Amino acid sequence: MNYIKIFSPATVANVSCGFDVLGFALNAIGDEMVFKKTTKKGVKIKKIEGANLTCNIKKNVAGVVAIAMLNKVNADFGIEIELLKKVKPGSGLGSSASSAAGAAFAINELLGNPFTRLELTEFARTGERVACGSPIADNVAAVLYGGFILVKSYEPLEIIKLPVPEDLWVTIIHPQIEVKTEDARNALNPLVPIADAVKQSANLAGLISALYTDDYQLISRSLIDVIAEPYRKNLIPHFEEVKKAGLKNGALGIGISGSGPSIFALCKGKENAMSVAEAMKEDYQNTGIEFYIYTSKINNQGIIILDSK
Amino acid sequence: MNYIKIFSPATVANVSCGFDVLGFALNAIGDEMVFKKTTKKGVKIKKIEGANLTCNIKKNVAGVVAIAMLNKVNADFGIEIELLKKVKPGSGLGSSASSAAGAAFAINELLGNPFTRLELTEFARTGERVACGSPIADNVAAVLYGGFILVKSYEPLEIIKLPVPEDLWVTIIHPQIEVKTEDARNALNPLVPIADAVKQSANLAGLISALYTDDYQLISRSLIDVIAEPYRKNLIPHFEEVKKAGLKNGALGIGISGSGPSIFALCKGKENAMSVAEAMKEDYQNTGIEFYIYTSKINNQGIIILDSK
Repeated sequence: MNYIKIFSPATVANVSCGFDVLGFALNAIGDEMVFKKTTKKGVKIKKIEGANLTCNIKKNVAGVVAIAMLNKVNADFGIEIELLKKVKPGSGLGSSASSAAGAAFAINELLGNPFTRLELTEFARTGERVACGSPIADNVAAVLYGGFILVKSYEPLEIIKLPVPEDLWVTIIHPQIEVKTEDARNALNPLVPIADAVKQSANLAGLISALYTDDYQLISRSLIDVIAEPYRKNLIPHFEEVKKAGLKNGALGIGISGSGPSIFALCKGKENAMSVAEAMKEDYQNTGIEFYIYTSKINNQGIIILDSK
Repeated sequence: MNYIKIFSPATVANVSCGFDVLGFALNAIGDEMVFKKTTKKGVKIKKIEGANLTCNIKKNVAGVVAIAMLNKVNADFGIEIELLKKVKPGSGLGSSASSAAGAAFAINELLGNPFTRLELTEFARTGERVACGSPIADNVAAVLYGGFILVKSYEPLEIIKLPVPEDLWVTIIHPQIEVKTEDARNALNPLVPIADAVKQSANLAGLISALYTDDYQLISRSLIDVIAEPYRKNLIPHFEEVKKAGLKNGALGIGISGSGPSIFALCKGKENAMSVAEAMKEDYQNTGIEFYIYTSKINNQGIIILDSK
C-alpha cells in the first residue's frame, strides 16, 4: 500500500460520569486524511483545509505521530500528509485526537500493520501531548477502537472496548465559543469530597453495567457528573437551559463533551436524537451565540478506510 | 407459613475498588435464624447464641427490622426470633447486615411476600442504622440479592445485581482483633485528590466489565483501592505481609473486607482459594494474633430457606 485515505472520527470524552476514563466515537463528524508514501525520507504536511493549523511537522500532531512511527521502524521512505479538518480545534470533540489517531492508524497501514491497536494508541498519545500538554488517551482510544472505550489504566496503558447498545445515538451542539483546555482544567476542584468520588464511581459502574445489558433507562440514570460538570458548566453559556430543553424532550442524558464547549446528548434511536436536536437548537438560538448541531449514531468501528492503493 | 429457618450469609463490602458501592455474599459463613409467628402481638428475641448481643428489640438489629415491618403492615400477630450468630460482630463480614437482612427476608415470607427485594433492602437498612450509625446498603443488599451487587444510588435507592463468574472463590482471614467502624471511618481522607478518584472509578469500571465478561485477569488488574486501603491498612496488623503472601500464591486480588479487620482474597477456583488460604495462614501465624480462616464460593443466591412450615 502506497496511498491511504481515511475517515477519522470526532469523539466525545468524559461522558458525564466517566470523567477522564470514558470516550466514544461519532459517525457524523470526522476528518478526512490522506497519506502517501514518498521515496524521499521524512514527513511533509502538504495541505491542511478546514482549520488554521501549522504545517510544521514538529508542532502538528499528525506530523509528530508520523515522525515517531517512521523513526521507530527506521523506515526507508517518507510520508506526505493532507488533512481535511472537519473536527474543529477547540470544539471539545477531540480534534487533535482525530488527527493524531488517524495518523497512527494510516501510517501503520502503510507500514504493513506492524503495530497493535494499543501501540497505536501510545503513538497517538505523543500527538496529544503536543496538542494538550498531556498525553491523554480517552479521545485517541475512542478514535482507534470505535464505540465506547474505557481507559482502565495508564501505567501500563490498558484500554477496554465496551459494548454499544444498537440503538444508541447522540446529538451534539457546538457553540462557537472558545473554552481553553487550561481554563477547563483550572476550573476543577483538585480535591474531591469522598462522598462525591463514591457517587461518581457508582454512576460509572451503573453506566458500564447498562452498556453490557442494553439498559437505556440505566444509561439515563447513570449519566450524572458530580466531579467536572458542576465547575465547568459555568464556562459554557446557557448550559443548564439547553440541557433542560434536551432532557425535557427525552434525551437519556446530557453533559459536556471533553472539556467543552460542545455539549452531547445521548438518545435512544435516531428519531429521538433528531427531536432532541430540534429542542436544543430552538433553545440555543435565544443566546445569540452561533452554533453547529449534529446528530450521529455511535460509531462502533472507529476509523474507516475510504480509499487505498 | 408460621415458621421459617434461614441461612443468612456473611458478606464482603467495598471489594477494593468498590469502596462504599460494592458487596458480595459468601456460602461458607452465615447466621442461622429462626422466626415463628405468635398469637401475641409484638416482637420477642427468645435466644441468641454465638455472640454477646442484646435481646432488647429496640437495640438488636433483627428486632428493629421486625418491628418496622410488622408496624408497616399492621400485623395481627407477633414474631419470636432465635439467632445463631456465626458471622461475628466486628469482623468486617457484615454481621449486623446478616441479622438485619435475614430478618427482613424471613418476616416477608411469614407475611406472604408483600414486599419487593428493594423494599426489604430499605427495611434492612433501618437495622444497619442502629448497628453502624448510618443506613448503609452494600452489605444488606449483598445478603438479599446474593452474588455481587452494586449500590448504584441512595436517593432513590437502586441496587444492581451483577453477574458472577462461575469459578470465583474467596478466601477470608479474620484476625481476632477489633477495628471500630468509627476508627475506620476516621482513618479515611475526607478529600480525595481528583487523580485518585479517577483511578478508583477506572478500576471499578474495569471490575464491572470483568464480571460481565468472565475475565479473571481483568478482575485481578482491577482489584486496587487507592481511597480506603492506603489509610485503613494501618489498623490491621501485618496486612501488607499477608496480602503479599496471598498474591504470591496466585490470588486475583486482596483487600480489606468492609472496614476490617477481615481480609478477603478473590481467587479463580477452589484449589487456588485453598492454597491461598494455606499461604495466608502460614504467614499470619507469625503474628501471634489468633485468626479464623474460611474458603468459600461466591454465594449467588443470597439467603437460603433451610426449613419452613
